[in-house]
Amino acid sequence: MGITWHEHFAERARPASSSDLGHLLGFGSRTDLISLAGGFPAPELFPVELFQEALNAVMTSDGQAALQYGPTEGYLPLRAFLAERMGRFGISAEPEEVLITSGSQQGLDLVARLFVDPGSIVAVEDPSYVGGLEAFGSYQARYATVPIDEEGMQVDWLAELLPQLEPAPRLIYVLPNFQNPSGGTLSLARRKRLLELSYRHSLPIVEDDPYGELRYEGEHLPSLKSLDTEGIVINLGTFSKILSPGVRLGWVVAPREVIRQLVRAKQAADLHTASLVQRAAYEVCRTGFLDRHVETIKPAYRERRDVMAQALAGVLPSGSSLSRPQGGLFLWAGLPAGIDAAALLVDAVREGVAYVPGVAFHPHHDRTNTLRLNFSGVDPALIEEAVARLGRGLARHLRPAEELRADDLSPGLATQAA
Amino acid sequence: MGITWHEHFAERARPASSSDLGHLLGFGSRTDLISLAGGFPAPELFPVELFQEALNAVMTSDGQAALQYGPTEGYLPLRAFLAERMGRFGISAEPEEVLITSGSQQGLDLVARLFVDPGSIVAVEDPSYVGGLEAFGSYQARYATVPIDEEGMQVDWLAELLPQLEPAPRLIYVLPNFQNPSGGTLSLARRKRLLELSYRHSLPIVEDDPYGELRYEGEHLPSLKSLDTEGIVINLGTFSKILSPGVRLGWVVAPREVIRQLVRAKQAADLHTASLVQRAAYEVCRTGFLDRHVETIKPAYRERRDVMAQALAGVLPSGSSLSRPQGGLFLWAGLPAGIDAAALLVDAVREGVAYVPGVAFHPHHDRTNTLRLNFSGVDPALIEEAVARLGRGLARHLRPAEELRADDLSPGLATQAA
Repeated sequence: MGITWHEHFAERARPASSSDLGHLLGFGSRTDLISLAGGFPAPELFPVELFQEALNAVMTSDGQAALQYGPTEGYLPLRAFLAERMGRFGISAEPEEVLITSGSQQGLDLVARLFVDPGSIVAVEDPSYVGGLEAFGSYQARYATVPIDEEGMQVDWLAELLPQLEPAPRLIYVLPNFQNPSGGTLSLARRKRLLELSYRHSLPIVEDDPYGELRYEGEHLPSLKSLDTEGIVINLGTFSKILSPGVRLGWVVAPREVIRQLVRAKQAADLHTASLVQRAAYEVCRTGFLDRHVETIKPAYRERRDVMAQALAGVLPSGSSLSRPQGGLFLWAGLPAGIDAAALLVDAVREGVAYVPGVAFHPHHDRTNTLRLNFSGVDPALIEEAVARLGRGLARHLRPAEELRADDLSPGLATQAA
Repeated sequence: MGITWHEHFAERARPASSSDLGHLLGFGSRTDLISLAGGFPAPELFPVELFQEALNAVMTSDGQAALQYGPTEGYLPLRAFLAERMGRFGISAEPEEVLITSGSQQGLDLVARLFVDPGSIVAVEDPSYVGGLEAFGSYQARYATVPIDEEGMQVDWLAELLPQLEPAPRLIYVLPNFQNPSGGTLSLARRKRLLELSYRHSLPIVEDDPYGELRYEGEHLPSLKSLDTEGIVINLGTFSKILSPGVRLGWVVAPREVIRQLVRAKQAADLHTASLVQRAAYEVCRTGFLDRHVETIKPAYRERRDVMAQALAGVLPSGSSLSRPQGGLFLWAGLPAGIDAAALLVDAVREGVAYVPGVAFHPHHDRTNTLRLNFSGVDPALIEEAVARLGRGLARHLRPAEELRADDLSPGLATQAA
């Protein structure tokens, strides 16, 4: 007999999610394929030897504690380090206002768990980070979407929208710097305006800022958290893009009352983040390495961005758009209406390149002609080849059906191409 | 002005939780206090040097991958190792049926996320593991409780209960071996009967088994998963008690369809478990160390159990009960009716010893005279002292109010003692 599992799943698990990107991660194991899909940092820039030394120092001096349970809030010296370091970016936080999370994805999950009831509305950018949408979606949030332009979230649009929403939203979710996926950065004027709106509506802001330090040109803009005089901003950070994603270390900065509740949520989620990696990351960072490291990453990523943007200009069809991000890890392209980036992906993968179709980043999955391309994780020498493959995938995809030779196609794809 | 945070929290976060044990973990930092509260393994038995060697081997041979993103499912060699090792315990699993989690607490969280809607019923033992209750509670489960006796969960009671429950439960949650907190072990006959019930009602079983290998006497009993012919059991395991809790590594063994959905849930929860610690744990385990290590832990814990049980027999008031677990990490005591173990804790801590009041383990928080004591994490030489302190705490607590001298008490406590 056996059990019909899907009949037993919770509501949140039942809808077939078109934002499920799990299959894309599998591309990584195809050795002939160049993946521009993940948000991978460049592995050759990881400080492997320094981490090895740090792990040795931790295991020699503090090995038992590194293997034992630790506090849910996180390793206190790491919390204090982060609190002190954020001071430099204008965020004044005590260690008690910092919670260590298992990557900032967990920060998003815990915030969603704390604020979102089934049916709650979260105001989000369109497009927005798919991992954020998945976290809020796990708790059955609905989305009120706000379009973006070259200055980021259109805050005036949000101001018009807020009074019309019923029930009132629980949160505003925003990625102010080099937004994933659009690359846009919220202007200073809009940051201030967004805070005013948040205060007026007593509506907390979740500021997700994994890329803020990875600015390749232009002036650093103050974070919402640093501008916040009322303690209404919950700020999320991570080591993933500036040190290592494989250690799964992020943090939340928030008022103590929020941290206390997030700690309760984290107890139920995973008790605490691994003692060993918290100590190792602290050991790596405590003597100022992180600042020097960020300075070595930035020129490398800037070069990759420029190489990819220039190559893309040569292959995107006329009528396409391409972002010009001042930092971060991604380019974001809009194809002419009528080209489905998910269908194109089939042809791109045949040519040996992968990306993420943009549909998953649109909260209502209502745009299909966008795509996100990662430039940080690919060697510059391979970026041009990857984009050339994308160009061949586009040519294959856009060729009129009558030109297709039968041996190009599997039966299933013939329909799709036509 | 500032924001009134608690008005913004989700339903699940609003009730004041009497099972919130966060403050107990804080006891660990009081150096004069002996804590029997946590479920801590003995740190002096951790294989610190072996872990250090493993970390060095990983960083030398595979450092970039150890610091990079990895698959949500987990590090394949570790999944394969676990699948193979479980074969020895009669569980036949492919690597694709094993998901690596950030501790088995995350396994519980992901299972709850997948199966529990607000108001869903989960059938649980009374008492049951507080972390499991918190995980299900995060998704607003309600509990149908089944009492336990010396053979574990009273399955006949459950058989009577199930047809009466409306809506039908989503899951049965059971800790079959040396249950936390009661120490009870489900008999073989009841295991078989529980599976029959599960099949008849198409009701999945979550088998939480952190302690199964830590048996100090008697015969190993086959797991529910190994007896399951229909693929209805979801089995949770962990390295926490047999290797290290600080690495935060657990696993779920389940049918592929369930694993696929748990993977989606884990993507939203924390993307994946740290690449570095998965590789290090695999390196530690791959040459058979784990089996030898378990054999060195067991006699040490057996001794601690015996020392504590004997000492407790001398201090518990007449009319108390004490568990006699054949394995695991905990003793479970029932005090005579009318003694509130949470109130007693105040006096115990004054005398320099902490434990966990049992109320948090009772799903409806309707018993107050139970307490859980951990024996694994405390040096045997300290166990007798800890129990002596508990005895003095009991004496202080049970002394008639008129005997109390004013200088014994802070004003707040005078009321409580009276």
